[in-house]
Amino acid sequence: MFSVNVRDHVMVAHSFEGEVFGPAQRLHGATYVVDATFRGPELGPDGILVDIGLVASELHEVLATVNYRNLDDDDAFAGMNTSTEALARWVADQLAARFSGDGRLSGLVVTLHESHIAWASFERSL
Amino acid sequence: MFSVNVRDHVMVAHSFEGEVFGPAQRLHGATYVVDATFRGPELGPDGILVDIGLVASELHEVLATVNYRNLDDDDAFAGMNTSTEALARWVADQLAARFSGDGRLSGLVVTLHESHIAWASFERSL
Amino acid sequence: MFSVNVRDHVMVAHSFEGEVFGPAQRLHGATYVVDATFRGPELGPDGILVDIGLVASELHEVLATVNYRNLDDDDAFAGMNTSTEALARWVADQLAARFSGDGRLSGLVVTLHESHIAWASFERSL
Amino acid sequence: MFSVNVRDHVMVAHSFEGEVFGPAQRLHGATYVVDATFRGPELGPDGILVDIGLVASELHEVLATVNYRNLDDDDAFAGMNTSTEALARWVADQLAARFSGDGRLSGLVVTLHESHIAWASFERSL
Amino acid sequence: MFSVNVRDHVMVAHSFEGEVFGPAQRLHGATYVVDATFRGPELGPDGILVDIGLVASELHEVLATVNYRNLDDDDAFAGMNTSTEALARWVADQLAARFSGDGRLSGLVVTLHESHIAWASFERSL
Amino acid sequence: MFSVNVRDHVMVAHSFEGEVFGPAQRLHGATYVVDATFRGPELGPDGILVDIGLVASELHEVLATVNYRNLDDDDAFAGMNTSTEALARWVADQLAARFSGDGRLSGLVVTLHESHIAWASFERSL
Repeated sequence: MFSVNVRDHVMVAHSFEGEVFGPAQRLHGATYVVDATFRGPELGPDGILVDIGLVASELHEVLATVNYRNLDDDDAFAGMNTSTEALARWVADQLAARFSGDGRLSGLVVTLHESHIAWASFERSL
Repeated sequence: MFSVNVRDHVMVAHSFEGEVFGPAQRLHGATYVVDATFRGPELGPDGILVDIGLVASELHEVLATVNYRNLDDDDAFAGMNTSTEALARWVADQLAARFSGDGRLSGLVVTLHESHIAWASFERSL
Repeated sequence: MFSVNVRDHVMVAHSFEGEVFGPAQRLHGATYVVDATFRGPELGPDGILVDIGLVASELHEVLATVNYRNLDDDDAFAGMNTSTEALARWVADQLAARFSGDGRLSGLVVTLHESHIAWASFERSL
Repeated sequence: MFSVNVRDHVMVAHSFEGEVFGPAQRLHGATYVVDATFRGPELGPDGILVDIGLVASELHEVLATVNYRNLDDDDAFAGMNTSTEALARWVADQLAARFSGDGRLSGLVVTLHESHIAWASFERSL
Repeated sequence: MFSVNVRDHVMVAHSFEGEVFGPAQRLHGATYVVDATFRGPELGPDGILVDIGLVASELHEVLATVNYRNLDDDDAFAGMNTSTEALARWVADQLAARFSGDGRLSGLVVTLHESHIAWASFERSL
Repeated sequence: MFSVNVRDHVMVAHSFEGEVFGPAQRLHGATYVVDATFRGPELGPDGILVDIGLVASELHEVLATVNYRNLDDDDAFAGMNTSTEALARWVADQLAARFSGDGRLSGLVVTLHESHIAWASFERSL
């Protein structure tokens, strides 16, 4: 099984609802350093699993739709907490829609690093 | 599948028994930078897999029981070599006991980084 | 010359005023991974420049006053852009006030990492 | 399941054939920081999965056969693009041949980091 | 004193002349992860030392002139060894020419990371 | 001014004397990831400040004299606390003795990373 990963980042504001979040219920923010990892069992005729440049540009486009924004005001996230793991799933689902036609890719993991000590990820098939 | 990871560290002394360890048979020490990664298929009603703050405090408590100690003198490790992989299993088992009642968590990986060039991990179900 | 560094982090929301900031004029956020580096020419009688535990707790207290907050609503930053370099100076000045009585420390550098590709720092004497 | 990882690196020149590679069709080069991760379900009598020193020396020997070379001139890679994922498979296969007699090892992942924003890996059984 | 740093990377082939280089006398290659750090004593009216976006685009333009190339064929480096430290100076000098009109910047450090264990830098005034 | 850095590591046991150290007064241990940074104003005829291979082998030799040892039993450190900053000075002084005859090197910084959140360094002239 092959994997190819590209890293980018996004800077957003948000707040959380629920006692469990403590002070993070207040409006605050985060830099998410984002790793998008595509997986597949075979290489294509050019000797690659997927074009790293294409992954980089698609990931950048997905992140640009939320970059420098307050996620509390974004309809895409209405009624949900934009936790690190929930955002990882959202990025993964957006990328899955863009790469669903690629027959060599079988799965995808998106990891969001929120600090030097915490990260979350979501893994799904393609 | 979701994953949530928290990082902490511990500083211990120990020695190894067995020719294979060469100079590491002498009393020496290590900083282990520890990643505890919890896994599960669904998010809870608050939109999270597990409370990062809770994971951080439980991991810190587990590591505190061995931090700043000589593992050769600890009954918990009597008769065994406290290799990086064996310690990873011990930390994972301690955390598993603390989170076994959490129905959303299906597994756990604990990784101990012993230097910038070597690490070991243990993965188990919950 | 000796240096001792401790790392922590803070997660805040803010916005910037000025054409140069482009989309960062919108309300957004950041994780700042913060390195506080103290400098001095001589070690004390215990063989250390400064107690790492003390630096860690003082740094954590300074960051706690802004952690999980919207800096646009904080009087301490009224009328200024809370750029990475300006926040680095603010953290350095707060730490300087707390360590000004320590005769062995001659200076201080505070570095704020805003992503995997950008950071800013402020260096001052003590 | 246990994992043990060792890191090393290699510096090579190469070029790629195919429109998809754009400017990387020209002769250029890369540093690959290489992680070799061995996996297995049980520890041996010494309390380790595999000797880290042995993994380090075997990995170093494998990388030495291509280090400081132009891969375009190496018969081992004739007629193929030495993409990051293809090189990850080559390193994994070389290591697999060297560790195939080790009954405790069940699999292997080799990851090549080509920059701070991109990496690829290959995972196989042993 | 303030500092602002931006990171990018470049992938090149080259060879060295001189017995001291051993196997690196052969044609090989490197990924250089490049940190460009600008320094200055005061912030401007917008509360920043220099626009991070501008630094990122200027650095990217400088690196693009050598990216995916064999430096042995580049007239800019004729008759010299493109060692990590010599390339750091070249990048710093290129950036200095682009930022020489900026009255707030007093100096510049460029660091090239050639692997996880080695880097070189060049520091100059502006 | 040029700088060239090489990284290695060492794993030791030790204990500290003094109330300020709290639980670190017990016998414990550390991995120190060591950066040795040499500085000088001019490159030599080969286009380098110093041979990276030579720096790596000298640093490795210095660290080998204490690697896998209990520093409490080493006469070189009798009567002193082997704090991170004190060990940084010891490594720097050992390297200075080995490179004192190199006319191009003007100074040296040695940094010891004791965990992902703390490091200390010592800078001296050559």
